[in-house]
Amino acid sequence: MQSIEEIQNKIKEALKEINFSQKPVELYEPITYTLSLGGKRMRPALCLMACDMFGGDLDQALYPAIGLEIFHNFTLLHDDIMDDAPIRRGKETVYKKWDTNIAILSGDTMMALAYDYIMKAPENVRLKVFSVFNKIAIEVCEGQQYDMNFETQSNITIKDYIEMIRLKTAVLLAGSLKIGTMLAGADDEYGEALYRFGENIGIAFQLKDDLLDVFSNVEKFGKQTGGDIATNKKTYLYLKAFEKAEGETLARLNYLFDNDNSDKVAEVKKIYEDLNLREDTEKEMKKYFDRAMDFIEIIPVNENRKTELIKFAQRLNRRES
Amino acid sequence: MQSIEEIQNKIKEALKEINFSQKPVELYEPITYTLSLGGKRMRPALCLMACDMFGGDLDQALYPAIGLEIFHNFTLLHDDIMDDAPIRRGKETVYKKWDTNIAILSGDTMMALAYDYIMKAPENVRLKVFSVFNKIAIEVCEGQQYDMNFETQSNITIKDYIEMIRLKTAVLLAGSLKIGTMLAGADDEYGEALYRFGENIGIAFQLKDDLLDVFSNVEKFGKQTGGDIATNKKTYLYLKAFEKAEGETLARLNYLFDNDNSDKVAEVKKIYEDLNLREDTEKEMKKYFDRAMDFIEIIPVNENRKTELIKFAQRLNRRES
Repeated sequence: MQSIEEIQNKIKEALKEINFSQKPVELYEPITYTLSLGGKRMRPALCLMACDMFGGDLDQALYPAIGLEIFHNFTLLHDDIMDDAPIRRGKETVYKKWDTNIAILSGDTMMALAYDYIMKAPENVRLKVFSVFNKIAIEVCEGQQYDMNFETQSNITIKDYIEMIRLKTAVLLAGSLKIGTMLAGADDEYGEALYRFGENIGIAFQLKDDLLDVFSNVEKFGKQTGGDIATNKKTYLYLKAFEKAEGETLARLNYLFDNDNSDKVAEVKKIYEDLNLREDTEKEMKKYFDRAMDFIEIIPVNENRKTELIKFAQRLNRRES
Repeated sequence: MQSIEEIQNKIKEALKEINFSQKPVELYEPITYTLSLGGKRMRPALCLMACDMFGGDLDQALYPAIGLEIFHNFTLLHDDIMDDAPIRRGKETVYKKWDTNIAILSGDTMMALAYDYIMKAPENVRLKVFSVFNKIAIEVCEGQQYDMNFETQSNITIKDYIEMIRLKTAVLLAGSLKIGTMLAGADDEYGEALYRFGENIGIAFQLKDDLLDVFSNVEKFGKQTGGDIATNKKTYLYLKAFEKAEGETLARLNYLFDNDNSDKVAEVKKIYEDLNLREDTEKEMKKYFDRAMDFIEIIPVNENRKTELIKFAQRLNRRES
């Protein structure tokens, strides 16, 4: 078994070795830039960890795993345009550093490159891997569309929200694991179990993101919080707040989100605290985390083969930024 | 052998039968809209004609052919954003009718759908078909990038221009033919010959487009001409004009393209006529068309098996709009 760190190093080395600098430079420079920005490399890491769990050959799995990372970065290029996001991982986003057209086209190229790497899977599992990947690619687009729809829709339920983050975020994590099992030649039912594990971890991961945006420790992490509140983003906390708030609190929440007010973020945070949303969100996260654990439990491999993956999931769950 | 019309009908019927209307509707409506706008369906038609030439099963080739059409339409969605093009095939483009974000995301979804259909190729040729397709997908992006680069570059040669249109337009036509031969199980060398045929036809096709933009008969076709001149687009005629013009004519061309002038289009057209650019462009087209014919000649199938494809190429070459 390889540790998370060993696996992440393997991915880092592979990404460093691949030369994405083709011509025209205007097209490929943003690709090199994006892929060198770092990040947790969660998707390829999950893929390789799943492969390792079933004793698969990590070298054979490496390129498809890289394909997942390229795909993820393609979605970032396009999402950042759609979300008007100027900064990512502390650096300017591609559409901001270059322009929208470059971000569209470099993104498109990355999508094609992702397929290229995915299809480097060994022949006996290539079509299966492709099918899982392609379904995910479409679902991620659907999730992003729901996310955009929600901006202007007013009757979003928590169920709708969970389905949106499942599509936008969780299925790619889940699929990365499933593809890892396929690359190891594991039984389909274990691939399915790890898929469900990943889906639930992915939802918990996004809920944690929502929570950190409101309650992370600004002094400690130097990260501005309250961005979701400032932009009226319909996160789990927002939806839960409107579910729980009554009377004057509800009226005040409505007022705050309808009017731009310099104290908006601080006041909404205060209401969220009074409504115990931190506890609610943590409870919801735990629900999905526990479900994830149920799915990993049924897999009949030695417990020590599951350690790294569980550790990785716990780390995502406990992170403070 | 099936006639062009029979093949185009087959494609039309298949596209009508496929249901692209999934949820969320905001994502899939633009896809249905785009694919129902019509057009010549050149890419799937070329694919099926090439397959038919080698006695392949057109039903087995239909879905990969549809994949080529979906891919082409994906590029239109994104290109229309980049080129600020409000109208396509007489209708509003997706980014104009909906918005840029929808056009980006529906386009991304179409790219994934294209791979889905491409991968419906029979198992024995699936990987080969995928490889040709994926290379093309990347080259088309490269071509579009060069096209964008040329807008602000001043030292473009005709050779640069031909390479740009080869990537942006010709390789997809060429690859459609090559994929058709693969689907029929033809020898690689004949696939290569048809690829080169398509590449040359594709370049001639784009030169014809450049020519029609300047010299098509407005009264007869009700189509506005001179758009490329108005926008200073570096077409074959533009580049050739600067190659040939001297003295006062050159100075005047420079002046006209540097200053917005109400008579610009008419005056540039007059200069193009005086410089005999119509003849030059037709000569250049003929060069590529003849090369294309050389490549189709070496294919050892009965001449009547080539008839439809040659007819199709001639039609593209002779069209008046």
